[in-house]
Amino acid sequence: MSRLESFIRRMSAQRDILDMVCRDMQLGDGPVIEFGLGNGRTYDHLRERLPGRRIIAFDRVNAANLKSLPPEGDLILGEIDQTAPAFAGIGAAFVHADIGSGYDELDAINLRWLPQLAVDLLAPGGIAASGVPMAHPQLTSLPLPDGIRPGRYYLYRRS
Amino acid sequence: MSRLESFIRRMSAQRDILDMVCRDMQLGDGPVIEFGLGNGRTYDHLRERLPGRRIIAFDRVNAANLKSLPPEGDLILGEIDQTAPAFAGIGAAFVHADIGSGYDELDAINLRWLPQLAVDLLAPGGIAASGVPMAHPQLTSLPLPDGIRPGRYYLYRRS
Repeated sequence: MSRLESFIRRMSAQRDILDMVCRDMQLGDGPVIEFGLGNGRTYDHLRERLPGRRIIAFDRVNAANLKSLPPEGDLILGEIDQTAPAFAGIGAAFVHADIGSGYDELDAINLRWLPQLAVDLLAPGGIAASGVPMAHPQLTSLPLPDGIRPGRYYLYRRS
Repeated sequence: MSRLESFIRRMSAQRDILDMVCRDMQLGDGPVIEFGLGNGRTYDHLRERLPGRRIIAFDRVNAANLKSLPPEGDLILGEIDQTAPAFAGIGAAFVHADIGSGYDELDAINLRWLPQLAVDLLAPGGIAASGVPMAHPQLTSLPLPDGIRPGRYYLYRRS
């Protein structure tokens, strides 16, 4: 399968999972955390699905399209593993991590800190979705929407 | 429609059009030109669909994943409107342009030079596909594959 086809399937899986989380999972009241703003397309999708909800986005640098730029105070720039721990305890309803680099070696480095950070930011019962697996004793895997191959995207609930 | 949903539809349209061009349109013998290498996902798709074909990629800077890096001599870096005219007359079988910026004003600037450049690189009868419209007297619009909304992607044959 070409990298283009794989990318389309990953983005479609992401959309389907975000839609299921926003529509069916009775999210708590806390903010949404977006790790990896990138161009801001996913931020735009979350904003459309969760009107009025605070979404705090993190990325190393700002590469967002101006149509999808978070408001002042809701875009935190810098190395995520350095900036985000200050938000521990914020009681997030949902953490979405789209920080896959396209290189397994780099993704493995991020996986050293990502699962614990997600747990620290989530409220009990909060939801995490990620393009990379997040093994952690407080994160329980949830079933994916129909049609998504296991291993393409990951969904968890924090205990 | 969110920017994520729109992006998925644009990438899916791109894939469907590339597949139709590579499978059904009896391309001539010349090289393929990819304007806008980006991450290299589309380059990877073209390479898979047209094994052995020379694909020359152009971009301002190299941002490709190492899995999709063209061989020496087939990646031309710099402003495309400055570098690509040197390849006029190369007799390309197919020119694919994925250089939309996400900003209408910037896209409008690219449209000043893109259609003529595509014509100059294409062999007579060659095919052009683009995420932006390319109005030119020597480019005749072709029908899109089923399911692609007009205006999402564009397909032409050079006279």
